[in-house]
Amino acid sequence: MHKAVKRIVVLGSTGSIGQQTLEVVKSFPEKYAVVGLAGGKNTALLIKQITQFRPLMAYCALSYDLPNTTFATMEEMASHHEVDLVVVATSGKEGLTPLLAAIRAGKNIALANKEVLVMAGEILVREAQKHKAKIIPIDSEHSAIWQCLRGETDCVSRVTLTASGGPFYHLTKEQLAKVTVEDALRHPTWKMGKKITVDSATLMNKGLEVIEAHWLFSLPFDRIDIVFHPQSIVHSLVEFIDGSIKAQLSLPDMRLPIQYALSYPQRLENPQLPRLDIAKVRSLNFEQIDYSRFPCLQLALEAGKRGGTYPAVLCAADEIAVNLFLNRKIAFLTISEIIEKTISLHHPITKPTLEDILATDEWARKTASNFVRV
Amino acid sequence: MHKAVKRIVVLGSTGSIGQQTLEVVKSFPEKYAVVGLAGGKNTALLIKQITQFRPLMAYCALSYDLPNTTFATMEEMASHHEVDLVVVATSGKEGLTPLLAAIRAGKNIALANKEVLVMAGEILVREAQKHKAKIIPIDSEHSAIWQCLRGETDCVSRVTLTASGGPFYHLTKEQLAKVTVEDALRHPTWKMGKKITVDSATLMNKGLEVIEAHWLFSLPFDRIDIVFHPQSIVHSLVEFIDGSIKAQLSLPDMRLPIQYALSYPQRLENPQLPRLDIAKVRSLNFEQIDYSRFPCLQLALEAGKRGGTYPAVLCAADEIAVNLFLNRKIAFLTISEIIEKTISLHHPITKPTLEDILATDEWARKTASNFVRV
Repeated sequence: MHKAVKRIVVLGSTGSIGQQTLEVVKSFPEKYAVVGLAGGKNTALLIKQITQFRPLMAYCALSYDLPNTTFATMEEMASHHEVDLVVVATSGKEGLTPLLAAIRAGKNIALANKEVLVMAGEILVREAQKHKAKIIPIDSEHSAIWQCLRGETDCVSRVTLTASGGPFYHLTKEQLAKVTVEDALRHPTWKMGKKITVDSATLMNKGLEVIEAHWLFSLPFDRIDIVFHPQSIVHSLVEFIDGSIKAQLSLPDMRLPIQYALSYPQRLENPQLPRLDIAKVRSLNFEQIDYSRFPCLQLALEAGKRGGTYPAVLCAADEIAVNLFLNRKIAFLTISEIIEKTISLHHPITKPTLEDILATDEWARKTASNFVRV
Repeated sequence: MHKAVKRIVVLGSTGSIGQQTLEVVKSFPEKYAVVGLAGGKNTALLIKQITQFRPLMAYCALSYDLPNTTFATMEEMASHHEVDLVVVATSGKEGLTPLLAAIRAGKNIALANKEVLVMAGEILVREAQKHKAKIIPIDSEHSAIWQCLRGETDCVSRVTLTASGGPFYHLTKEQLAKVTVEDALRHPTWKMGKKITVDSATLMNKGLEVIEAHWLFSLPFDRIDIVFHPQSIVHSLVEFIDGSIKAQLSLPDMRLPIQYALSYPQRLENPQLPRLDIAKVRSLNFEQIDYSRFPCLQLALEAGKRGGTYPAVLCAADEIAVNLFLNRKIAFLTISEIIEKTISLHHPITKPTLEDILATDEWARKTASNFVRV
């Protein structure tokens, strides 16, 4: 195999980020080789991907038999010696142990699965430092910060994450009480998976991103801001100690931050990516976020600041609540109520081990589920 | 003298940039020592500065005697062995030979005097490479690009300079015919010297900046854009080959790019610099520049592309014409006419020497002056 080829494992290859990762890989057959694929319940798509990319290894959430394919666990793939970059595009907690395996193998990691960093940030960051694993963010906001920090990581005074506000930013509480699943999945600027789209509507996603930024960039919470920016063109801003601000801009298309995470520290020309013409933008708008109207955002920021096992409770309860909403068992406004109630019942652990976090996760899922009679 | 102290010469210390440079220096007495000052006709201010900063050397355009002060030429100061950084904040062509002296002495140079780079860019850049002199831009647009290029100078696809449009951007030709000197000096966002303020009103300044960017960043003209941005908050943008764009933002205050040029590659905290709160900005606007309405901008871009001695003619004729306007000898719209006529009479030299450029400059000044009966 040619030395310059980056050998990639994609965990969560059938999800939105996973599919777009493979799309980017396809544009550069001389640069990337897919050596591992792991898919969830969409077995049909996974088989199609395996047939197309012919990886060394594959993992299928549902057991399956495929000729000429070696099945392996996600942990085995993430730490395999013939792998240069592990793309963690799983969702929820499922990426946690594979990510930890990749970190402990000292891999470069392109991370889209923010929940794992929220749940276990302290452990993951500590282990990454210890094993010299590099975590490159795929989230557009964090990729923006990562890009703005190129060449000067030591003079940062604060970062500002932009928030599109999702589809409901200007609705009243009365209107929010009546929104449907279809309404919530109609994001104004980004095309994403269902869970993250609902998280964008509640602004939970922005709260999770603040916690993610806290761990990725070693920043205290009071140096991470959020600003409402409806166009999703400025993906985030970094202020340096002299007051100079750098921002990263592009049309909202996840393939760009995905490609940057794959090609880092290089950049690659890709005619398939849309180009932003700033002269045609006419107006970029910014507004203070109205925290009071978004209980999920408040819960996330509070859980992040409290630390310990609180963020794990937040993530688990949110996943359960969003699923209940997507399955039309609860109303939109009940999502935050379930998370709040679950958090209020939690007995926190201050310096949790991985086992503590996994036990907390399990407890929180059960507790959150119990609030609803199915 | 403490090793960490940067020893600075300020050429043009009594001008707008020179004064603001000294203001920045005053904020960091432990970081910077002024070892040389050169002033123009404002002798009173120069003496005040000499008394305050007690430089080793000084230069006064008008001959003057001051006890305890060693007078030297600007060239001597710029190349003096006890100088770490030369701030070239002169205006027009007067900075040319001192800049060349600094370059040939391999100094770090903070450059505000864009005309010299426009006149003699090819020679200056070649000499700077040869003598390993670093030219750090002070112009806010070029400082923005310089900042956005930190850590990745090799993947640039294009740069976009922002233009506030000056005070007359939306005036009709009929209205422009009647504008006064006072109108022209009323810049909407920047507080600057008179010449550059008029150049901003004609958009000649933006044309000069394009030529400056061409030389500073080794970019062909078709990869340098201009966009109208009335708020002067985004100071410029850099697009990389993958389509990702970085921009630098701050409130319009020249002390920030000046300080960055002084402290580069470090950044310094300075409570005196205003901070931009992006949430309070509400709207950043961008629009295609209407080139057809700004003959000076067109003349500059054409002169830049033609190269050779054309840019020197442009600069000299512009300086003469702007002075005539400031002295109320000609109307605002006559500025571009004088420059155009001067250029049309020029017999260009393709690979000019410094002597060619200085001779061209002299010819162009005489020619431009002759169009007006005083």
